[in-house]
Amino acid sequence: MTPHAAPAWSASRWFNTPEPLTLDALRGRVVMLHAFQMLCPGCVAHGIPQAQRVASQFADSPLTVVGFHTVFEHHDVMGPDALEVFLHEYRVRFPVAVDHPGPAGDPLPLTMRAYGMRGTPTVVLIDAVGRLRQQVFGAYEDLQLGRDLGVLMAEALAARERPSETDP
Amino acid sequence: MTPHAAPAWSASRWFNTPEPLTLDALRGRVVMLHAFQMLCPGCVAHGIPQAQRVASQFADSPLTVVGFHTVFEHHDVMGPDALEVFLHEYRVRFPVAVDHPGPAGDPLPLTMRAYGMRGTPTVVLIDAVGRLRQQVFGAYEDLQLGRDLGVLMAEALAARERPSETDP
Amino acid sequence: MTPHAAPAWSASRWFNTPEPLTLDALRGRVVMLHAFQMLCPGCVAHGIPQAQRVASQFADSPLTVVGFHTVFEHHDVMGPDALEVFLHEYRVRFPVAVDHPGPAGDPLPLTMRAYGMRGTPTVVLIDAVGRLRQQVFGAYEDLQLGRDLGVLMAEALAARERPSETDP
Amino acid sequence: MTPHAAPAWSASRWFNTPEPLTLDALRGRVVMLHAFQMLCPGCVAHGIPQAQRVASQFADSPLTVVGFHTVFEHHDVMGPDALEVFLHEYRVRFPVAVDHPGPAGDPLPLTMRAYGMRGTPTVVLIDAVGRLRQQVFGAYEDLQLGRDLGVLMAEALAARERPSETDP
Repeated sequence: MTPHAAPAWSASRWFNTPEPLTLDALRGRVVMLHAFQMLCPGCVAHGIPQAQRVASQFADSPLTVVGFHTVFEHHDVMGPDALEVFLHEYRVRFPVAVDHPGPAGDPLPLTMRAYGMRGTPTVVLIDAVGRLRQQVFGAYEDLQLGRDLGVLMAEALAARERPSETDP
Repeated sequence: MTPHAAPAWSASRWFNTPEPLTLDALRGRVVMLHAFQMLCPGCVAHGIPQAQRVASQFADSPLTVVGFHTVFEHHDVMGPDALEVFLHEYRVRFPVAVDHPGPAGDPLPLTMRAYGMRGTPTVVLIDAVGRLRQQVFGAYEDLQLGRDLGVLMAEALAARERPSETDP
Repeated sequence: MTPHAAPAWSASRWFNTPEPLTLDALRGRVVMLHAFQMLCPGCVAHGIPQAQRVASQFADSPLTVVGFHTVFEHHDVMGPDALEVFLHEYRVRFPVAVDHPGPAGDPLPLTMRAYGMRGTPTVVLIDAVGRLRQQVFGAYEDLQLGRDLGVLMAEALAARERPSETDP
Repeated sequence: MTPHAAPAWSASRWFNTPEPLTLDALRGRVVMLHAFQMLCPGCVAHGIPQAQRVASQFADSPLTVVGFHTVFEHHDVMGPDALEVFLHEYRVRFPVAVDHPGPAGDPLPLTMRAYGMRGTPTVVLIDAVGRLRQQVFGAYEDLQLGRDLGVLMAEALAARERPSETDP
């Protein structure tokens, strides 16, 4: 099984970051992408708090937590202004993108569509060389998520210590 | 200490009920009023689920649970349309009123102002003869809330069994 | 439905009280009896903490919480010495009785038998005039327990304020 | 920082395993040692359930969970007979050792002393080549534990795939 490169991101707006994030710029770091909707109960009760725990407990690790507001229903009441209030009230400090709306007639936004997400919450883990390694829809136990992050972090660390295969 | 009558309610709209509720019409029943905002984390994590537990566990008791959406900040993103989606997503089935906006310049809605609420979540208990008996801002332990409801329900039952003092 | 008097208690030893408690001596107070075994997972995870919450949150009410160590299996490792360590480690401060062993051949102790308990944990609520009003085996939600205690406390208070029916 | 080899284990009895476990025999596998006392509230509420989650969620991984009953107080009521009932009631299925009593006058058992444990619960992580990599007294968040296990599992896997350094 060979993991493929994670699809590029499409965002119409970013919060909590001075400039947009891209997968290329995050090369060398493990990335946890948390896709959510602000009025999705499972996201609010479990997904967001878990992403906050990861961001805070692994603040010193080569790991970046990124939120994606992947609205695919009730678009009228989950626009960027509502999201901004939500992020403020729930004290979400990690970078959050508004997933770019899809073409006319498609309720799914572009990044959600590119990753083939089935709904929210969805967690995607991308390794330090940009490959999509895990994609979990729904509950993702802390133990499992921690283990999966640990594996990717160990790989990233080993790669740094290993002389490049293309070195002369 | 003599409890006074609970202030009348002012609502601009109702959900989950064929017609508006009034305190007068609820005379004879204990009333638990749960005041919340849909983007208030403490309301979503604790207050709403508690109100749902009360409504469901005491469905056969002379008790009515009523929600009040008392928006006092970020009005733009917590309007009735957003509330409707919230109630749907969180499966809130008990009657919910949109608290009537206050006069120009006052961010607090009328019912919130009339009860002197300090914020959300706030739980108000009204006895079967319409008197305000408890008003709790913030955490209200299930045991305490259950005890307080039990006292009011016992009073209501005793009153029914007692011959009216004004009977000839 | 007329509730009958709660059976008398049989204890071979008491902890956390200078002298044995009896139902007669507790007349006028609501009694919550919590029957448990120190190695019963449901008792340790839910029952004991709940009894501690009741004892602490209603410390100023006419309510007494009493534990009963109703051992009906593995008697060898749940004797009074082990119980004493358990009560110390779990910081149980309310009075706890060791239920009196049954006659030869009966693994059930006397009080457990007298109340017809089906296992542990069991909560028994006794009103201020000594009648058995609730007996719940297994989970007893805080809201329900609080409500049931509230009803009994309201009755006890009403009785104090009412002139005795036998007064001349 | 160079991790040293984990001290050897001393056990006076084993449960849930046909024969005693040793670190040597577990070489090639990551080992999570959970040290507990059956009447330690933090062990019962958090440590044991966490060890059970690890054993169950990572059942297919090269990871072994081992319990150690490291009794250092109240020895009379936490002997092997009591432990056996505890393991049965709490459905603990992973191998559990009774830590070997220390020399006369020392309340600490031998393995607890050899590892310099400060109390219970304590979790020790040992990597696939037998080195002590983590030792945590008290709370160990699932996310952190999962991450630490993931790192050790990734190392073990990488070692298997790498040609031995001593190969000709």
